[in-house]
Formats: sequence, C-alpha cells, structure tokens
Amino acid sequence: MYDLIIIGGGPAGITAGIYAARKKIKSLLVTKAWGGQITKASEIQNWPGINEISGTELMTKMVEHLKIFEIELKEGNEVIDVDKSDNGFIVRENDNTHEAKAIIIAVGKIPRSLDIPGEEKFKGKGVSLCSTCDAPMFKEKEVAVIGGGNAGFSAALDLTKYAKKVYILEFLEELKGDPFTKEKLEKTGKVEFIVNAAVKEIKGGAFVERLVYEDRDTSEDKELKVQGVFISVGMMPCAGFAEKLVEFNKTGEIKINFENNSTKTPGIFAAGDATEGKYEQIVIAAGDGAKAALSAHDYLQGKKE
Amino acid sequence: MYDLIIIGGGPAGITAGIYAARKKIKSLLVTKAWGGQITKASEIQNWPGINEISGTELMTKMVEHLKIFEIELKEGNEVIDVDKSDNGFIVRENDNTHEAKAIIIAVGKIPRSLDIPGEEKFKGKGVSLCSTCDAPMFKEKEVAVIGGGNAGFSAALDLTKYAKKVYILEFLEELKGDPFTKEKLEKTGKVEFIVNAAVKEIKGGAFVERLVYEDRDTSEDKELKVQGVFISVGMMPCAGFAEKLVEFNKTGEIKINFENNSTKTPGIFAAGDATEGKYEQIVIAAGDGAKAALSAHDYLQGKKE
Repeated sequence: MYDLIIIGGGPAGITAGIYAARKKIKSLLVTKAWGGQITKASEIQNWPGINEISGTELMTKMVEHLKIFEIELKEGNEVIDVDKSDNGFIVRENDNTHEAKAIIIAVGKIPRSLDIPGEEKFKGKGVSLCSTCDAPMFKEKEVAVIGGGNAGFSAALDLTKYAKKVYILEFLEELKGDPFTKEKLEKTGKVEFIVNAAVKEIKGGAFVERLVYEDRDTSEDKELKVQGVFISVGMMPCAGFAEKLVEFNKTGEIKINFENNSTKTPGIFAAGDATEGKYEQIVIAAGDGAKAALSAHDYLQGKKE
Repeated sequence: MYDLIIIGGGPAGITAGIYAARKKIKSLLVTKAWGGQITKASEIQNWPGINEISGTELMTKMVEHLKIFEIELKEGNEVIDVDKSDNGFIVRENDNTHEAKAIIIAVGKIPRSLDIPGEEKFKGKGVSLCSTCDAPMFKEKEVAVIGGGNAGFSAALDLTKYAKKVYILEFLEELKGDPFTKEKLEKTGKVEFIVNAAVKEIKGGAFVERLVYEDRDTSEDKELKVQGVFISVGMMPCAGFAEKLVEFNKTGEIKINFENNSTKTPGIFAAGDATEGKYEQIVIAAGDGAKAALSAHDYLQGKKE
C-alpha cells in the first residue's frame, strides 16, 4: 500500500515525484517510458535557465534528479485501469496491481495519426513520427512535414540539417508555430510552407515516393515528390484507463480544477498534457506536476487526521 | 508603445519574457531587481533537472537565457502605478512612463516583518532577513530563526554551516517545512525546534543579545541567548500599484483565473507569488509565467484582428 501512485514519467510526473519524495510521501511512480513527448524534441530553447538542450538530455537530467530521492520507480509497464478500492485506489497493470491512497495521472498524450492510405504501410519506410530519431536518414533527400504548429516546425528544423528540401504542410490557413522558429526555418532557404493543404495519400514502391494533398483553396489534388513524410498533427490524450474516476472534455483531456490540479474524484489529481489547458509546454507541465504533488500531500495530511 | 510590459524579474517574469520574446511580441520587462526571493535561497533542490543549485546561480542562468532574445529590459526602477490609457495601459515609474496593450504582473512578494520591539533597531546588528547573505557572520555563535516553514528551514540550514546552535521558533503547534529538510537539520545536531512560540522582543546593547518569546502552552515568557535573529515569517504581496485594475484576496494576492492567468481586466495578466494560489514554488511560478505570456499572446492576436 502506497500513499501515492504517480502514473507517467514525463516532466509533470517526474516533477510530481520530486515534490512527493521531498514531502516524504511513500510513493510509486509507474511509467511506460521516461520522458514522453519531450524526448522527441531535438532543440528545446524555452526551458528557463538552459539556452538550448535536446529533449533527451533534459529528460536524463530530470530522471537523474528524481533518482536522488526515496521513491519507488517502475518502468516499462502500461496502466490499464484505475478504480476505487477499500482503502483508496487500485492501479492495474497488465500483470500486476498496486494500491494507494492518492493518485496523480500524468500520462501525457500520444501522437495523432493522419488516418490516410499509405501511412501505416510506409511506417519505417519513409513515414516517421520522430524527426529526432530519423532525420539523419534523409540526407540530401526531399521531405514533407505534416503540421504547421510548433511540433511540425521543430521537426522541420531537425530535417533542414540533413534534407535538401523540406515542405511544411498545414491544413489550416495559418501556421501556428512560433514566429521565432519560423524565421529560423526561412533562413535555411530550404523550407517551403504550404497552407490550406489536406493531405490525402502517401504513395510509393518499397519506400515513400510521393505525397498527395488537396489544395483547399482550389480543391485541386497536388503531388509532391518526397522520400520522407514526418507526421506532426498533434497529440491525443491516453488516460482512458481512468474513465471510472475522472471526467474528460470533448477531446479526451482530463477536466481539472486549475487551482490545485484535483479531478472530480477526491484523491485523484492530474497534471501535464493529459489534462485540459490550452498550452502544452514543458515548464507548464512541470509546474502543474509540482502543484498536483503538493495538493496530494495536503489531501493525504487531511486523510491522516 | 509596447505590445506587452512584464513587471517583475523573478522566475515568473523571466519565463514570461522568454515566452513573449519567442512569440515575437514587442515587449518590455521592468524590474526593481533580478530574481526576487529566490536569490535568498542558498540551496535549491527542487528545480527539475538540477540536483542542487543556489538561488543566485539559478537566477543568473535564467537572466542569461532571457537576454538571448529580443526583449527590452529595464532594471532598477519601481513601478508605482498602472492605469488604463487610450490604447491600452500606462505603467508609471518614479520618473518615467511606458505604454502597452497588455501587462503581466509578476512582482512576487516581499518579506513580512515581525513588528516587535528591537526588530528595526537591530537590523544589520544581528537581525537579518537573508541567511544567504549574512550566515557567515555567525560563526560559532548562537542564532534563532523565526518561522518553521520551508523558508525558515532553508535559513536554518544555511546557518548550521557556521553557527554552533540554531533555534527554530514557530508560532503554530506544527512545523510547516518539508520533512526532508527537517531530517537534514536534525542530522546536524545543532538545531532545536521550539513550537507554539510567540516572539515578543529582541534585546541587546550595540548588537543582538537576547530573544524573548512567549511559550503559548504555558503563557510563560522565556529568553534565548542569541547573537543573531533571522526572520522568515512569510511574505507579503506588493502589487498595490495595480489596485485600479486587479482584484485582491484578503491577503493582498491578485485574484486570477487559474486556467489562463487572466485578471478581472482584459489585457492584464498575473503570475507567480503575486497571485493567489496555495503553493509558492519556483517551478510553479515559471509555469504560470509561461501561461501568462501565451495568454497575453492570444489576447494580442485577438486585438489585432
């Protein structure tokens, strides 16, 4: 029996872990993997105090920091269910269960797919979700990034280091990524922005050869000759395992009280990209992880009285 | 005319500055001094990714980071008034005014005083608000820390490196500081905790010699022979200059919408210790600073349409 189980090992979960351990809460942190989405960022420039760092490096620092403290860590397992138990809550993994008096859900989000022909077929054969991992394989090639938000911009920036041409396709009329990064992309002279583009199909033989999209201005289908397609069309919440105890908004994000990161069930807290909130940023997730841990601490103190 | 003026140069203000600059918002950051309260912490162990760092060092890193970006910085001036103007808001300093379409207030808090006889008289003569600055002067001396929260614990930890005896006096029955730090203090063998203690007077000749407190259990007055008194009894908001535009709670903290850090006046945002919110932590302030800047960006985008 733990006092607290933290589910998730990204910036929110790790920060919650650091705060819980410093409060001497008997805690377990379970995570499928460390870092979540941030490990896919090759250049982070907005973590205060560090001018520039890769996501993997920042995550390594955070995990090392967490490991200084007394907290049990379980990596590799996926949580499939959270439910009430006699003394609090029960967390079920595939082959294991744990109990705790309080829970923090910080599982983040997983990448959304395009759901178009060719996407599945060419995964690992030109279609990629991770520019940090795969950019070096596209030296002197032409590639397309699907998604004109910050994630797409960041992927494109990775790719400009290798590819000779990078298309960025955005469904909407306007690019959502930071103007600061856009300028950086423009300066490379390698990037072409295509807005109002509805991507329809990825074509090829053994590997990706072409990308088909509809120009939404003219309703005309167009083709780009590319050898790589990087998909950055946003993220999907994955906290469905907690559906008995938390409420979701329309897009599947956990509804929280923003003041203390509590959910509709007393004792269940949530933080990071798994929750409602307009801005998904590492420092915001970390701050909310701290808030959730301190709120859980207050909750547990109340329970003890 | 700026798009955004950020008032305050602590973790919230600096992070807001980084985010605003990356969004290419034409911004000015004004601050009386860099860092605010965190510069008084000698050991920060809960900034994710850094096992241990002094407040001054962390702040230096953050300010250096901020200075990479295009943002105007003004240090040294105190804001005395914020009001509406024809095109947005006007920010008045002693000898200067600035205008902007949006404002972020991130001025933090200032230390509360005890308001007892001897406190003012012995300032700089044994009475101190800053253990990081003054602890080395108390080598082999006996000192008292007033306040049993994390700030008091942190001051006491600084002092154990020099003083031969450190008393921690807490008004309430229970110490509020982290158990983790409490253990560290206990291990030094130098610390004595006194709870239920109402400090009444600081006595001495040219320098502090004695501290008088009432034992609230017995209503008896007691004296401690100490040469130093470190006051850590909490913080006071100092955003009174914005009283025309924001609402305060009972303790003088700015009321905000926790989802987006907006205040009752559209275009005025607030973040960090100057705002309502139970937990005052560097990482929470930084996260809220990011939120405030992104909310200000959304607000300004709306204004432009």
